[in-house]
Amino acid sequence: MQTHHHPLDAATALATIAEGRYAGATHPAYANMAGPFGGVTAAALLNAVLLDPRRLADPIALTVNFCAAIANGPFEIATKLQRGGKTTQHWSMELAQNGEICATASAVCGARKPVWSHGASRPPAAPPRETLQEMSGAGRPEWVRRYAVHFIEGGLADFPRSDGNIRSPRTLAYMQDNPARPLDFLSLAALSDAFFVRIMHARGTFQPMATVSLTTYFHVVADELAAIGATPLLGEADAAIFHNGFADQTCSLWTPDGRLLANGVQITWYKE
Amino acid sequence: MQTHHHPLDAATALATIAEGRYAGATHPAYANMAGPFGGVTAAALLNAVLLDPRRLADPIALTVNFCAAIANGPFEIATKLQRGGKTTQHWSMELAQNGEICATASAVCGARKPVWSHGASRPPAAPPRETLQEMSGAGRPEWVRRYAVHFIEGGLADFPRSDGNIRSPRTLAYMQDNPARPLDFLSLAALSDAFFVRIMHARGTFQPMATVSLTTYFHVVADELAAIGATPLLGEADAAIFHNGFADQTCSLWTPDGRLLANGVQITWYKE
Repeated sequence: MQTHHHPLDAATALATIAEGRYAGATHPAYANMAGPFGGVTAAALLNAVLLDPRRLADPIALTVNFCAAIANGPFEIATKLQRGGKTTQHWSMELAQNGEICATASAVCGARKPVWSHGASRPPAAPPRETLQEMSGAGRPEWVRRYAVHFIEGGLADFPRSDGNIRSPRTLAYMQDNPARPLDFLSLAALSDAFFVRIMHARGTFQPMATVSLTTYFHVVADELAAIGATPLLGEADAAIFHNGFADQTCSLWTPDGRLLANGVQITWYKE
Repeated sequence: MQTHHHPLDAATALATIAEGRYAGATHPAYANMAGPFGGVTAAALLNAVLLDPRRLADPIALTVNFCAAIANGPFEIATKLQRGGKTTQHWSMELAQNGEICATASAVCGARKPVWSHGASRPPAAPPRETLQEMSGAGRPEWVRRYAVHFIEGGLADFPRSDGNIRSPRTLAYMQDNPARPLDFLSLAALSDAFFVRIMHARGTFQPMATVSLTTYFHVVADELAAIGATPLLGEADAAIFHNGFADQTCSLWTPDGRLLANGVQITWYKE
């Protein structure tokens, strides 16, 4: 058994059973209220593609559908290379426990070329992280303690609230693996789900809620990530609408010097 | 053979072969440069779920991965109900031609309840459509003529440009099926891909480009859509980054009185 120095590596580690079949297990370091933190499940599903010897390029897009609660314990991931072209490969993945599908996913890998590039959007203005207080992980699920979060706007200092006031669902925060870890696609996939569900910020209440589907786009290649190494990212999350039990959520992850590494969306469910 | 009064109904019509197996065909009314307009392919994939007698609720999320060029002609869609709970059903879909996968997709259907709701984001300010000029479809692919587009910002009046100036990738426009058609999930799915690929707006050039993966969230139920009927929608599209051959794209679709019906993202490929 390989030793993993960082809990994210341990939590996303997969053993190859056969081509396109992998065994993994949930990890207590990323435990959520019930079962594992969804971001690590997303990272594990992506890792099944990253480990595949047929993979020709870095991931561009990842969509994960959380179909059912994942129990703490072992799981199996099956991958299928649906179609491969000169530029892109399309993968489908399924995560099962005891033969029951708990998550489905798709990933696109794509070969980048040194063609016209343009950073159309600029990162939000943010003060240096050193001037901000780190969110306390006390009393929070274990996975929350795997992230160093420094809120700039839209924090949870007075959460939960029962004043009935609705606030902006937007959060701006520095986010980093805790302990620090060099960035890669696994950590970006997990970070894209590491923002709290927006209803907590907008409404200030804690209630049954879950990510239903998560889509993350990567705007960086492995070599660039390796050169960036371990750094806090400036993260922005927002939501446009909460409608009768489902709400959208957006996220963007920037390097402190303004390079957009990943962005995406998720749709969340809430009970009441 | 059923007669369809609107080309979108004809282009997304499916014949049931067996449970979870459907036959469809591309339609000349939605022809793109090569093969069909991706938005109608997305709508056809969604229609396979909508037609399934096992479906318990309206669609919440749709992700379509365009794996390979679709040839003009017949195709087959296979659907699989991956997991169904009390609140959500998770579906996977595959579109094949001659046994080769051309697109994969997933959809989540979800039962909404009359719980706390909140329109957190407001639509962009826009002048009445009557004050705007309709985009000409002359010289454009056939599918473009299936939409009445009235640009407010970020139009294509001087496209293509070769001045080298980079503009904002953002577009604000009224969008409607042409001829007008009552809104439903099929038309929303197609509209979410009916914005031009953002590189055309930002760079002003026409070049090989394609949508690779498309994710759309629906924030409305069928009864609400039926009550809305046929109306132009206020559509906003933008992009954050164009990086070495892949670019993101966002879209939001609002009723003229400010109800967000759908939003989502796509990742696009461009050649040079």
